[in-house]
Amino acid sequence: MTWNKPMPEHPVVAVAGATGVVGREMLKVLEQRNFPASKVKALASARSAGKTVPFKDGEIVVEEMTPESFEGVDIALFSAGAGVSKKFRQAVVDAGCVMIDNSSAFRQDEDVPLVVPEVNSHDLAWHSGVIANPNCSTIEMVVPLKALADNAGGIKRIVVNTYQAASGAGMKAMNELYNQTREFLDEEPLTIEAFSDQIAFNVIPHIDVPVGDGVYKEEWKMVVETKKIFGDDSIQVAPTCVRVPVLRCHAESLNVEFNEPIDVDAARRALEAAPGVTVEDDYENFVYPMPGLKQGTDDVYVGRLRADTTVENGLAMWLVMDQIRKGAALNAVQIAETLLPQA
Amino acid sequence: MTWNKPMPEHPVVAVAGATGVVGREMLKVLEQRNFPASKVKALASARSAGKTVPFKDGEIVVEEMTPESFEGVDIALFSAGAGVSKKFRQAVVDAGCVMIDNSSAFRQDEDVPLVVPEVNSHDLAWHSGVIANPNCSTIEMVVPLKALADNAGGIKRIVVNTYQAASGAGMKAMNELYNQTREFLDEEPLTIEAFSDQIAFNVIPHIDVPVGDGVYKEEWKMVVETKKIFGDDSIQVAPTCVRVPVLRCHAESLNVEFNEPIDVDAARRALEAAPGVTVEDDYENFVYPMPGLKQGTDDVYVGRLRADTTVENGLAMWLVMDQIRKGAALNAVQIAETLLPQA
Repeated sequence: MTWNKPMPEHPVVAVAGATGVVGREMLKVLEQRNFPASKVKALASARSAGKTVPFKDGEIVVEEMTPESFEGVDIALFSAGAGVSKKFRQAVVDAGCVMIDNSSAFRQDEDVPLVVPEVNSHDLAWHSGVIANPNCSTIEMVVPLKALADNAGGIKRIVVNTYQAASGAGMKAMNELYNQTREFLDEEPLTIEAFSDQIAFNVIPHIDVPVGDGVYKEEWKMVVETKKIFGDDSIQVAPTCVRVPVLRCHAESLNVEFNEPIDVDAARRALEAAPGVTVEDDYENFVYPMPGLKQGTDDVYVGRLRADTTVENGLAMWLVMDQIRKGAALNAVQIAETLLPQA
Repeated sequence: MTWNKPMPEHPVVAVAGATGVVGREMLKVLEQRNFPASKVKALASARSAGKTVPFKDGEIVVEEMTPESFEGVDIALFSAGAGVSKKFRQAVVDAGCVMIDNSSAFRQDEDVPLVVPEVNSHDLAWHSGVIANPNCSTIEMVVPLKALADNAGGIKRIVVNTYQAASGAGMKAMNELYNQTREFLDEEPLTIEAFSDQIAFNVIPHIDVPVGDGVYKEEWKMVVETKKIFGDDSIQVAPTCVRVPVLRCHAESLNVEFNEPIDVDAARRALEAAPGVTVEDDYENFVYPMPGLKQGTDDVYVGRLRADTTVENGLAMWLVMDQIRKGAALNAVQIAETLLPQA
């Protein structure tokens, strides 16, 4: 059943999971983009209730999230894990509140659109109270690929290798990379808790749980989410997801086959005109985006754009995106903006 | 003209570039493998002459490399840069000495075999005094691919993404990663000299110089060297070479299309039986090789072996190799071993 409750011009917004790394960034993005909220509530588990989180010139006191927390709330931005999203879904929707969920809980549900506004904001038309934010690695590639696919008859196959930052595993993981690196330099025993293995001066070819056939769930997400966002089940996606010792931006290397020819110049023009994309590509002068230097940015940065002549209609490129912003908090707030009544 | 000077059972060996990170490892590998040298000489530039390098229970005094250094030498292992290799080639060969060169100087020369002993030791039959050691990134993938190609009708296309360690850029680069990381943690200004950009907590999608069409030379090397080593110009290679903040082992992620079907079980058996390969792959228990933990090893380690169902006859896999050993010093010494008179 499609949602038919009109959105007020100045909605009440709740951030669920407000003390986490994404929740804090959601508050920052709401502030930076002057989101026209009449009120912003910060919700978290009982453990965090009473703490404060910064917002605009002041602070918001964090409230314990209960089913009653959503009465009078119009939009709830969730980033508290799949379990919490599942637990509160019914209460949120029953309160007449739209849930924009950053977890993987509902992304494959048939009645839940999976939305990246630059790609498929049209899917917001049929939501029934819950809208899912895609996985960060998926968001990163679909934003530039949308512009290219529109100019090349759609996508046939994507081989994608990720170089993912610690931030994707949360604040504890970022701290572990930072502190473990110092332990390594000081030749002290390494503290390994947030990751399965040492991350300092190492690379871990594994993100999330096994889902069968040698694939980890982060990889599976990139396959199924890309098909759903583009509304095209024929797109073939072959991902390898890898954690690298970088703090908070993800890089991705793509080899893409399109259905029709697209040359590098046309691809560059399409990317330069695309919303949410910045081309940073002067390879002769060693100009390309790098994840250690893009914290706090909003766009997906594209460099190393070149023909992949080993395959028909092939392009290769290199992407960098702040995983916490466009990969999570910013995309969720952009969805909320798209729900506002249009002037 | 093919080389026809017989190799003595106990050759005199020179290591040219003996004070560098690869030269030192060459000495270590000669020692560890009990290479039957009658004498080992250490050569370097005038600047390093008189220094000592460790060998067996003692040390060798480094001599300045001159054209006369190769009189009476049977095998010279060169790792002093392409310029030095070019400068001394004629003197080495004129002295009746076989040059095994780790630089890129002669790899594409028609009279120079490019050899990875596990793959194409047969090419040693036609050398004319100079044998080239391939680029480390190429060595890493051709060793396991040889076993698979033999069981799958050859290779159609390889998409390879590298996660390359600082060591590939030499000792200064390894030190820069180490020291720059401490500067980063201490919030001091970063010293950037060995790399084009910050390497601490960063990833740089660029190795070596531009060669046109958006490609850097490290990538070009992987294309042309793979074809030459396999003796098969039809193999398509699409590489993206990336530097990561790891000290000395390279990782690679491969998506390979073979000419004929090969299932994962058959591939695993072929890899387990292959010389120079260790399979370390229990993905459900998060067992896979990682570059931060493989320093000092000799094999190419293979994990994450799985079907790539997005393409016909596809396999994906993850490789790790100590770049200084099998990627440089060990491969050169293995070539030297193959030149010894067979018992």
